Amino acid sequence: MRTVSVPLGARGYTIQIEAGLLPGLGRSCRRLKLGRLCAVITDQQVAPLYGEQTTNSLRAAGFDPVLVSVPAGERAKNLQTVAETYDRLAAHRLERKSFVVALGGGVVGDLAGFVAATYLRGIDFVQVPTTLLAQVDSSVGGKVGVNLKAGKNLVGAFHQPRLVVCDLDTLETLPEREYRSGLAEVIKYGIISDAALFRRLEREMPALLARNRRLLKGVVARCCEIKSCVVAQDEQEGGLRAILNYGHTIGHGLEAISRYGRFLHGEAISIGQVMAARLSQRLLGLPAAEVDRIERLFIAAGLPTKLGLREAQKGALLEAMQHDKKVVDAEIRFVLAERIGRVRHSQAVPERDLNEILTTARTHGSAAAAS
Amino acid sequence: MRTVSVPLGARGYTIQIEAGLLPGLGRSCRRLKLGRLCAVITDQQVAPLYGEQTTNSLRAAGFDPVLVSVPAGERAKNLQTVAETYDRLAAHRLERKSFVVALGGGVVGDLAGFVAATYLRGIDFVQVPTTLLAQVDSSVGGKVGVNLKAGKNLVGAFHQPRLVVCDLDTLETLPEREYRSGLAEVIKYGIISDAALFRRLEREMPALLARNRRLLKGVVARCCEIKSCVVAQDEQEGGLRAILNYGHTIGHGLEAISRYGRFLHGEAISIGQVMAARLSQRLLGLPAAEVDRIERLFIAAGLPTKLGLREAQKGALLEAMQHDKKVVDAEIRFVLAERIGRVRHSQAVPERDLNEILTTARTHGSAAAAS
Repeated sequence: MRTVSVPLGARGYTIQIEAGLLPGLGRSCRRLKLGRLCAVITDQQVAPLYGEQTTNSLRAAGFDPVLVSVPAGERAKNLQTVAETYDRLAAHRLERKSFVVALGGGVVGDLAGFVAATYLRGIDFVQVPTTLLAQVDSSVGGKVGVNLKAGKNLVGAFHQPRLVVCDLDTLETLPEREYRSGLAEVIKYGIISDAALFRRLEREMPALLARNRRLLKGVVARCCEIKSCVVAQDEQEGGLRAILNYGHTIGHGLEAISRYGRFLHGEAISIGQVMAARLSQRLLGLPAAEVDRIERLFIAAGLPTKLGLREAQKGALLEAMQHDKKVVDAEIRFVLAERIGRVRHSQAVPERDLNEILTTARTHGSAAAAS
Repeated sequence: MRTVSVPLGARGYTIQIEAGLLPGLGRSCRRLKLGRLCAVITDQQVAPLYGEQTTNSLRAAGFDPVLVSVPAGERAKNLQTVAETYDRLAAHRLERKSFVVALGGGVVGDLAGFVAATYLRGIDFVQVPTTLLAQVDSSVGGKVGVNLKAGKNLVGAFHQPRLVVCDLDTLETLPEREYRSGLAEVIKYGIISDAALFRRLEREMPALLARNRRLLKGVVARCCEIKSCVVAQDEQEGGLRAILNYGHTIGHGLEAISRYGRFLHGEAISIGQVMAARLSQRLLGLPAAEVDRIERLFIAAGLPTKLGLREAQKGALLEAMQHDKKVVDAEIRFVLAERIGRVRHSQAVPERDLNEILTTARTHGSAAAAS
């Protein structure tokens, strides 16, 4: 088993990465001395696959779990679902020492984590990410939250999990589109801080698309190491942590204007990262050859990199980006790349440049429609 | 001006206590170097009285406030009101550096504080408590949250304000019943940790009921000092802080079974504190004479101390108390008094004793009906 530790003092924890971990979940939780009552929060896609295995493992270790299954998809990551989940926790009489297990992808992890952060003013939680995106990104670092109509993750908290269990077996059942979506976050780590990882992905993308187990283990572990290192230096995003949002400003805007229906998160940030690379070329001198390598790698991963935006949609996108949490004095801030492996956060982008990049995007080859 | 400091390191802050503070609120906020955009969250009772004065003070100091007025009363302290408030903040485009001003009583403070704790994963907030109860209790210490149908304050966070401004002028407009309700928390401080305060209240209750300004200033400051001292030792209620919940286990249960309609919070905890005193007599040997003094002081403050419970209501009350946040392994824990000025938290109470106390309560003189 590979383990990565997240060194946050009293809030520190371990990420386990291996195939076949789920049956041992209960034993791992017992070592953390958690209370007897717990809730496994999952969604209606994951519940039939891993719900029973998870509750069985917990029961065998002496816990008393209730399974709470919410609708699947980003649109369910809202306050209504949160309210319904609270009621289920109250009905199962969870107490301060009780805990939540988040079993699923990023949506489930963010939602279940927010519920754990706020129920009884905060109870423990364990992340069991079952998608590539959640294993390399959203399950680590303690950012939890839900969406408002006005924008993504506008409501939330910082609440670190007590443990993250990445069972590589769960990636086997992941639909191809979801798997590729996760690769968008993997590529991001290469761009923001690891040129060697980026080169490895360029070389081994076919094997990674074939879900080669050995390769996956190394890649997931490397991504978790990078994230852990960033989070340890800046847990609550005073500065550095913002680099993890490379490609996300435009990406979140795209998700918002398509009402979380058209794009998976990874698809939206794939487009966002390519656009951010073009902005980086204009504003930080990222070489054109590196912009091309970035675009080619997303294409090799089967991800969209272009976008057909009508003029009205462009306006809506700019408007949605104004709701980004990184806005300071009404000015949108970007993460931009100097070169592959090195980025700068909090970069102001003149509206003219942003406008031109959004306009150029639609003239490039076959584009994804925004709605 | 009296000031009390809450020494919590980087999260520390000051409580200001004086008449005529509201016009200086904007200047006080400017000293904290808060962002320009802000939201004044208040309720429909307080808005006509102090809304304009508050926004004017902020505007004069260079801030850009939006006034958000929610329905008054404990029943509005729910997730629906929270959701509507988030939308107003998003519409006013609040950013990470923006802040919330909670202008009103305990309900507004708890609700606005929870909104501030979770909007954009947490923004700053300033408490401007306009009720006695909020000035001596709920505005200090960072506990924020809202109710679920299953129980009071079941959802929330710890989020310390940046400043608390207790303008004693605002107590002038407080309805008599609300004012007396606040006295229930004042008396509580005497019981849990200050026998001299308790004696002073016994002597000076008539002047306090007449809202004598000099007396009020000293009493509010003393209550804030006690709360500050407890919170500084145990910010997140690992142990000691639980003593602040003396009388609240039964009190919260009463509020829940009457659906937050029959009792004001202070009235419910007045009954709860007298019942807890009787339990204390049985289980910790609190002298009968002190139980009498406790009951007489609540009566002198014009607060209810008895309760007519039908058998079915008693069952509902016990059920509601099971949802108390202090439940451990399904056992309700109480704060009980050894003597006036000294209590112990986390006390288990045999169900037989609890049952008998609830039964005895209704045979004592004229009782308040629970619904």
